[in-house]
Amino acid sequence: MRATVIYGAGDVRVEAVPDPVIQRPTDALVRVVRACICGSDLWPYGSMPDSDTGERIGHEFLGVIEDVGSEVGGLARGDLVVAPFVWSDGTCDFCREGLQTSCRHGGLWASNGIDGGQGEAVRVPQAWGTLVKLPVAPDSALLPSLLTLSDVFPTGHHCAVKAGVNPRTTVTVIGDGAVGLCAVLAAKRLGAERIILMGRHADRTDLGVQFGATDVVAERGAEGIERVRELTGGDGTHAVLECVGYRAAVETALGVVRDGGVVSRVGAPQYQDLPLDFGTFMRNITLTGGVAPARAYIGELLPDVLDGRVEPGRVFDRAVGLDGVPDGYRAMADRKALKVLITP
Amino acid sequence: MRATVIYGAGDVRVEAVPDPVIQRPTDALVRVVRACICGSDLWPYGSMPDSDTGERIGHEFLGVIEDVGSEVGGLARGDLVVAPFVWSDGTCDFCREGLQTSCRHGGLWASNGIDGGQGEAVRVPQAWGTLVKLPVAPDSALLPSLLTLSDVFPTGHHCAVKAGVNPRTTVTVIGDGAVGLCAVLAAKRLGAERIILMGRHADRTDLGVQFGATDVVAERGAEGIERVRELTGGDGTHAVLECVGYRAAVETALGVVRDGGVVSRVGAPQYQDLPLDFGTFMRNITLTGGVAPARAYIGELLPDVLDGRVEPGRVFDRAVGLDGVPDGYRAMADRKALKVLITP
Repeated sequence: MRATVIYGAGDVRVEAVPDPVIQRPTDALVRVVRACICGSDLWPYGSMPDSDTGERIGHEFLGVIEDVGSEVGGLARGDLVVAPFVWSDGTCDFCREGLQTSCRHGGLWASNGIDGGQGEAVRVPQAWGTLVKLPVAPDSALLPSLLTLSDVFPTGHHCAVKAGVNPRTTVTVIGDGAVGLCAVLAAKRLGAERIILMGRHADRTDLGVQFGATDVVAERGAEGIERVRELTGGDGTHAVLECVGYRAAVETALGVVRDGGVVSRVGAPQYQDLPLDFGTFMRNITLTGGVAPARAYIGELLPDVLDGRVEPGRVFDRAVGLDGVPDGYRAMADRKALKVLITP
Repeated sequence: MRATVIYGAGDVRVEAVPDPVIQRPTDALVRVVRACICGSDLWPYGSMPDSDTGERIGHEFLGVIEDVGSEVGGLARGDLVVAPFVWSDGTCDFCREGLQTSCRHGGLWASNGIDGGQGEAVRVPQAWGTLVKLPVAPDSALLPSLLTLSDVFPTGHHCAVKAGVNPRTTVTVIGDGAVGLCAVLAAKRLGAERIILMGRHADRTDLGVQFGATDVVAERGAEGIERVRELTGGDGTHAVLECVGYRAAVETALGVVRDGGVVSRVGAPQYQDLPLDFGTFMRNITLTGGVAPARAYIGELLPDVLDGRVEPGRVFDRAVGLDGVPDGYRAMADRKALKVLITP
């Protein structure tokens, strides 16, 4: 089959790779119907050292089951399924607690001999614990929104949940990427009435407003902090959803969070340390968040996607075939595309 | 009157200062019956630059009301009261939310013209919002435990509450100072069944065991982390209560916290940055805590102290008069005393 392989910064190729086969009785084989490129794929795309062998890439996909191992219950050939961006057994204590990202027998896609999502097919380990069946046809118009259940929408939701967003919390979302916009959508869905979106790209923040943002702040750094404080009577907001991953974004978050409030981070950290100093201590600021256990949230979010009450799939503003994947990476890296949908 | 004044590192004096008087209608005048020295007083005692004028010090006291301003309701001459270590108006939004440490009209003792607690008397601003009446006589045997309601017991309690301690959480407490021991007591009171206390001073950890610690780990750093992990099947504990304030203590906390768990800090930060890096992100670790709004907790903790169900006053292992305060500082700094009680 064909799949995407990254060989270094700026060097993504689509090439022939071995066809996946069932290796363990807990595996399933999924023919990919839709996949996509994640903002986090841009980190290796921006900085990965050159590699002779390359590495598979991609961790968001939905598809049709072609085969299942003998121990995979509840799933059958022909089922349309979505895969969260971490695979997990569904039975260990962490999975039962809803922290499938720490599953004792789980792992990441596209590493250690596991297929990546940006290809024609994927061997799915721990298929019973990992995959969620989708009650629509494989040509449903809902596919883009359903695909966001793989990562970006649950990630925004996780960010909002960990921040304790509810109808009484004011919210700032930092970052107008696909995750930031999904965080707006998630905060709105959880009842937040005041959602300030910090982002500089008008086309993206416009979508953020449609998703529920009540204010947009284009300024950054100290100026951005001042602007959010002006909008909130000097206090900042109860919850701040940090959807970027740079230290500067967390610094902004700490600057716009209200005393006693929560900074929730889902941007993959591109930093070692954070300035959680005496000042943040005296203000009782909490830092929470982390990699989203998407699998834990799909059951809750799926009905709203199926009903069309939320349309997270609107974050996709470009669609490509497998051959168009390298162009898709370039477009996202150049900020010419917000998020790229792949139909292999 | 006489009160404690600090002139620099290692230089604490008891000297004549102006008698406090009611200045505003919201003030009360309190004759101090018991005060004490806090672990956080040791920070300026260890490092304060020399000062010609000196600064008042002390923020934990209980005493008898001598006079009240015209707008102070609910309190009268002769009442025995305890003061939390931050004064607050009790009416602003932060106070109503239970975050009196961020009160819009509150502040710290022993600064900006406000008396310190280690003296014969104190002018208490915002007395209605600040003081809590104690239903015992001023010679009650409960005074030491009641005095801990000023800071150290609510601080341990805040640490445990913010960490979400309950009967199903395993707990590590880092630090065998008075706050650490009170955190053990608070965790036990909240129902925790497994409480690992990290501390090197056997006399202190012995008291920790009496307060509810089930295991004691004397090792520090990587060795200490390994030991806690051994005790917890390799996973660490759900909650970690950091009661020291050094970066190394928070690093230990991050090393012994279970995936998805919470590090709650109440040790006053002697650091600028914390290593909340990619690893902590992938493990969904939360950092919370901060300066404790003691005032918010006194109502809940007081009945247990009055009943003798908890005896936080056992952290006092030395008692002095006002003249003995400099010796008290020295004894605490030299770790010859755990916590020093003052009877002015």
